[in-house]
Amino acid sequence: MGNAGTPLVAVLGGGQLGRMLAIAGLPLGLRFRFLDPTADAPASALGPLVVGELGDHEALTAVAEDAVAVTYEWEGVPAEAARFLEARGSRVHPPPRALDAAQDRLAEKTLFRRLGIDTPEFAVVDDRAGLDRAEGTIGLPAVLKTRRGGYDGKGQRVIRGAGDLDPAWAALGGVPLILERLVPFDRELSVLAVRGRSGDTAHWPLVENEHRDGILRVSRAPAPGTDAALERLAADYSERLLDELAYVGVIAIELFQVGDDLLANELAPRVHNSGHWTIEGAATSQFENHVRAVAGWPLGDTAARGVSGMVNCIGALPDPAPVLAIRGAHLHDYGKAPRPGRKVGHVTVVAPSPEARDDALARLAALIE
Amino acid sequence: MGNAGTPLVAVLGGGQLGRMLAIAGLPLGLRFRFLDPTADAPASALGPLVVGELGDHEALTAVAEDAVAVTYEWEGVPAEAARFLEARGSRVHPPPRALDAAQDRLAEKTLFRRLGIDTPEFAVVDDRAGLDRAEGTIGLPAVLKTRRGGYDGKGQRVIRGAGDLDPAWAALGGVPLILERLVPFDRELSVLAVRGRSGDTAHWPLVENEHRDGILRVSRAPAPGTDAALERLAADYSERLLDELAYVGVIAIELFQVGDDLLANELAPRVHNSGHWTIEGAATSQFENHVRAVAGWPLGDTAARGVSGMVNCIGALPDPAPVLAIRGAHLHDYGKAPRPGRKVGHVTVVAPSPEARDDALARLAALIE
Repeated sequence: MGNAGTPLVAVLGGGQLGRMLAIAGLPLGLRFRFLDPTADAPASALGPLVVGELGDHEALTAVAEDAVAVTYEWEGVPAEAARFLEARGSRVHPPPRALDAAQDRLAEKTLFRRLGIDTPEFAVVDDRAGLDRAEGTIGLPAVLKTRRGGYDGKGQRVIRGAGDLDPAWAALGGVPLILERLVPFDRELSVLAVRGRSGDTAHWPLVENEHRDGILRVSRAPAPGTDAALERLAADYSERLLDELAYVGVIAIELFQVGDDLLANELAPRVHNSGHWTIEGAATSQFENHVRAVAGWPLGDTAARGVSGMVNCIGALPDPAPVLAIRGAHLHDYGKAPRPGRKVGHVTVVAPSPEARDDALARLAALIE
Repeated sequence: MGNAGTPLVAVLGGGQLGRMLAIAGLPLGLRFRFLDPTADAPASALGPLVVGELGDHEALTAVAEDAVAVTYEWEGVPAEAARFLEARGSRVHPPPRALDAAQDRLAEKTLFRRLGIDTPEFAVVDDRAGLDRAEGTIGLPAVLKTRRGGYDGKGQRVIRGAGDLDPAWAALGGVPLILERLVPFDRELSVLAVRGRSGDTAHWPLVENEHRDGILRVSRAPAPGTDAALERLAADYSERLLDELAYVGVIAIELFQVGDDLLANELAPRVHNSGHWTIEGAATSQFENHVRAVAGWPLGDTAARGVSGMVNCIGALPDPAPVLAIRGAHLHDYGKAPRPGRKVGHVTVVAPSPEARDDALARLAALIE
């Protein structure tokens, strides 16, 4: 193997995203080392694992040793950890500034607005009186959210009437909050985009996403019924963010479609669940392009190949045989123990038409969960 | 990861084919253990490696322990080794009988003929007088080949006139030989096919192959200018072999096209270099379908996706950046040290048209070697 001569990429986080980054990156001639608090992290099948906290300087030093680049697969990586490695001379992609934005809903939405990216109306809530003021400003219905630490629908309370204010405050008060107008959106979309070290950018077609209980369940790509103007708007949003942040790697922006407009909900400075379909459904996957970007190589073509659908396996995996019997189905087992609410795998179907894709998704739905 | 619950596939051989089998099989929820004489075998990045000879019973026992199936990635695996594991209760796919046929050109061609699969004329040569008799029977030009141990053009001598007989005998005599008529073929093709445990079969479109110095250099798939009759003939050949051998897994048959006829040259009871394009260029790759077959799962769709070309990297790898700058190019680095004549990687290009594919191949040719 000549390990000594093989460029090493260090990944902060060793979950399924790190695992799929390595599966994409090994054929490109890279090797991977991961940092994760869990000794049996899913990525550990693909390279050595440093077991430690993502903010632990000793562990960070160990994972980054001799790496040509450091990247991360979780937006919860402490920005300080990324800056610590940068200060020690590591090349860290995406930039720590992207973590700052992703980890604070106020910073995130302020950045969106500054770049001309539409968002739902929002207001800062620092105390109980501030919640009333915010409600007066933006109106109801609205969503009260913690500024930090929320994911997969956690750290949120919907406020439909004045009577919901006190319970919401009781549940979430005491930490910095933000109140967002609950937008009556048509549907949820996301755009995946990538920027290389030389500043070249590319984006995949818009994805339509279905969530349930705050967790992504199904994605369809290219999103049905979009037009060139909507695709262009999403591409513009992503390019503004990528260029502003001097970003390197894949970024995901979750969007609400309201008529012809797109409102940005949040960004993920990493490969993203709504981009898993790109492994089989695009000319180049989000994982391969993230690796190409981080390694300083040219980006690959992001065009869709056929029509794709992706279903998450939450809690447990289905029996492989009936899944693989569905034409165009590809199973991705993350190597995780089953546990309620846990993403343990996904299935992508690639079909020649939207009708065939939706038929396959319906068959999958009967097998999954 | 719950390693204990993850089904294990044992692979005899740990080269690039084993490596690509594991890259395809890990997402299906399998893990892999390899047996190879070389401690830094390319597959060792994807799973534990037992270092040992492929005929060593202790090493064989170790690699097969707790495996749900044993497969191999080299036709030189001693058939006795495969039978030893079968006798110990292992499920071995493909069957050892396929190794018998692949390891002896006489057995191989006799099998082809018995199944109605056309081959070039051939005759057994056991001594110097037998060479003259064979020449008298099948005529010249012809190729004298060792019955066992030849690969990548080794163990062969072309005989164009009577004056070549003695030198050819001097080079190869003393082991069992075969004399084959040198067929003035139009081109070299191959067919990749797969059979599942339940007897279902599938085949990929015919591949056109260019060899130089006995080593595969370039494949194009689907092979340009084939028609349905030629595809059907190749499929028939593969199905006859698969069913006769009660085969499980991927098989490759190398073919000479002569007008509307196909002459079988040899079979490989494994995934094959001329099928590497299927990773990006087919709905399901040869590696994934081999794994599906071996694991007892349904086979995936073998249809081509676009138009593909594959170039082998012999001796050394090109710089990744200019390769990846070619639209539709996918690099596969096997993690092997450079060495003259060694297959160290390949590049596949997937294009929307044969012209675009050939243009990309021309650009690749300028970068490779």
